[in-house]
Amino acid sequence: MTPDERVAQQLPELKLDALIVSALPNVRYLCGFTGSNALLIVSREGATLFTDPRYTIRAAQESNARVEVVKGSLFAAALKLIKKKKWKKLGFEANRIPYGSYAELDKGLPSKSSLHPVNGLVEHQRMVKTPEEIARIRESVLTNSRAFDSAVKQLKQSMTETDLAAELEYQMRLHGAEKPAFDTIVAAGPNSALPHAQPSNEVLGNNRLLLIDMGAMKAGYASDMTRMLHLGKPGQKARKLYKAVLEAQLAGISAVRENTTAGAVDRSTRQILKAHGYEEFFVHSTGHGLGLEIHEPPRLGRKDKTVLKAGMVVTIEPGVYMEGFGGIRIEDTVLVTKTGCEILTPTPKELIVA
Amino acid sequence: MTPDERVAQQLPELKLDALIVSALPNVRYLCGFTGSNALLIVSREGATLFTDPRYTIRAAQESNARVEVVKGSLFAAALKLIKKKKWKKLGFEANRIPYGSYAELDKGLPSKSSLHPVNGLVEHQRMVKTPEEIARIRESVLTNSRAFDSAVKQLKQSMTETDLAAELEYQMRLHGAEKPAFDTIVAAGPNSALPHAQPSNEVLGNNRLLLIDMGAMKAGYASDMTRMLHLGKPGQKARKLYKAVLEAQLAGISAVRENTTAGAVDRSTRQILKAHGYEEFFVHSTGHGLGLEIHEPPRLGRKDKTVLKAGMVVTIEPGVYMEGFGGIRIEDTVLVTKTGCEILTPTPKELIVA
Repeated sequence: MTPDERVAQQLPELKLDALIVSALPNVRYLCGFTGSNALLIVSREGATLFTDPRYTIRAAQESNARVEVVKGSLFAAALKLIKKKKWKKLGFEANRIPYGSYAELDKGLPSKSSLHPVNGLVEHQRMVKTPEEIARIRESVLTNSRAFDSAVKQLKQSMTETDLAAELEYQMRLHGAEKPAFDTIVAAGPNSALPHAQPSNEVLGNNRLLLIDMGAMKAGYASDMTRMLHLGKPGQKARKLYKAVLEAQLAGISAVRENTTAGAVDRSTRQILKAHGYEEFFVHSTGHGLGLEIHEPPRLGRKDKTVLKAGMVVTIEPGVYMEGFGGIRIEDTVLVTKTGCEILTPTPKELIVA
Repeated sequence: MTPDERVAQQLPELKLDALIVSALPNVRYLCGFTGSNALLIVSREGATLFTDPRYTIRAAQESNARVEVVKGSLFAAALKLIKKKKWKKLGFEANRIPYGSYAELDKGLPSKSSLHPVNGLVEHQRMVKTPEEIARIRESVLTNSRAFDSAVKQLKQSMTETDLAAELEYQMRLHGAEKPAFDTIVAAGPNSALPHAQPSNEVLGNNRLLLIDMGAMKAGYASDMTRMLHLGKPGQKARKLYKAVLEAQLAGISAVRENTTAGAVDRSTRQILKAHGYEEFFVHSTGHGLGLEIHEPPRLGRKDKTVLKAGMVVTIEPGVYMEGFGGIRIEDTVLVTKTGCEILTPTPKELIVA
């Protein structure tokens, strides 16, 4: 069954005649189209893609859905189809459509038709990856790790954070990535204590931690990895912190398997950091799913009840952040399997001395 | 008057007690905050920024608005303030808020309060840039042109489109950009006929056109430039097409001045291409505004009635696209002045032979 057929199959249960898909990654997932302007309607009888004339050729090449190339509003074109097909109950992606577009649809709807908010239906389906998606994520992870290796070889303590970020992203592209999956983080010393640090013009320097968090988009799929380096020989505090975070990360990986909950994985890393007295310094969740987007369900947070299934791909990334000193995070991308997980990230996890 | 005070000043006329600003570039424009999770409420008595604990330090450093750091939903926190202040009429950015967030606000609103869609209010204000914004755009444009120069020096016909895109983006970063303002376009030969081509693994090759469309984000501001190269000596057709597009681009630049309309500028480029018999191959509009975002109002399309004002920054980018042969586009970023415009882009506009 194709992804759009799986959506169509759920429509009767949801008492919907069709689902209006407005989130571009969901459109891509369901019909293969990669353009930047698109709307997809999945009905019980099949899927229709709306896009504009810039994408006439690409839509014909990529989309498995019927294609309508439209000048002007895609929503106006969708309304025409809704009228023609006499669909009554229409689902829409409430969290992934602007209010203004919703209002345009609502205003143009025939009086007997109605709109019904639907959340996370396609995202839920996307959690378990197809073999082809897993192959692409593997490639993305490998590309990212190769870029890391190539860039780290060129690291000098006299570089700025920005220089190194530039080199990492350049290497990603040279190794075949379309672009970074997110703004690359290169944070030296105290900067690494900010979980969302931006590379600055500060020199990497000596006698301090260096955090690199990077991911590639390759053939549409994301990867995500964090590795720690130490500029110069690490002192006792850095080594102690690193050891604790690594222990937590390995505990997280050990906890991943089919039928465990996302929350249980999070608790397994948190427990280790608590035992080391660092619980209060672990200020985010243990990980997240990734695929066509860098952040996808499931979230691996304390209270998340999602049951993991074989074929899900998630990050495991506990961290400890100490203001004024620095932060340590170690992150792999892993594939959930029936008996545990496969660590996709090949990069070793020793604290690299640079 | 600060940007948020200008918004506050318009509230009485709009019969609003406050405006809920959800678009991140608008939040940044109004209060200076650059984080990725933010909501701003501008009332007649001032502005309040809501963000999460990851951004406690950054918000304190950057925001001129009062800051509330919130765990959980920013909308829930905004609702509390709305109740406390007893605001009745609340504007919201209809085209820049997901329906789901609108619904969360609507559901939690006190019975005497109501939500009113507002569109483009902040975007309209953003059209005319402040001197500081113009300085930043200048820097972004220069950074981009320097990166172009550095990368083109290293161009070889044996490179792939992707290799060259990687080099261009690497040079942007080395010259101080945070990232590309959009996915860099490098399109050789027939690929250049697609206005939204993506760099491929095709070798640049010989005896054909090469289109490069690139922009930088520098200190938060975008730049945008398209230049044409010819791989090997250009033939008669390429030279003829190039000459026509250049003539159209210069006509567009000549048409820009305070108090003319966006549509008039568009018609000036279109007229030239029509005279050359290429009107049907010019499939997009003449340009667009840019600033905190790569595409901002005004749009310079045939029917656009926006009156240009000194301080607006727009692109002028006519193009001609011939399937199977290639496309030619020439694009500068220009600053509207009282008497005409200043071309910010310093890169020469000769057809470069590579």
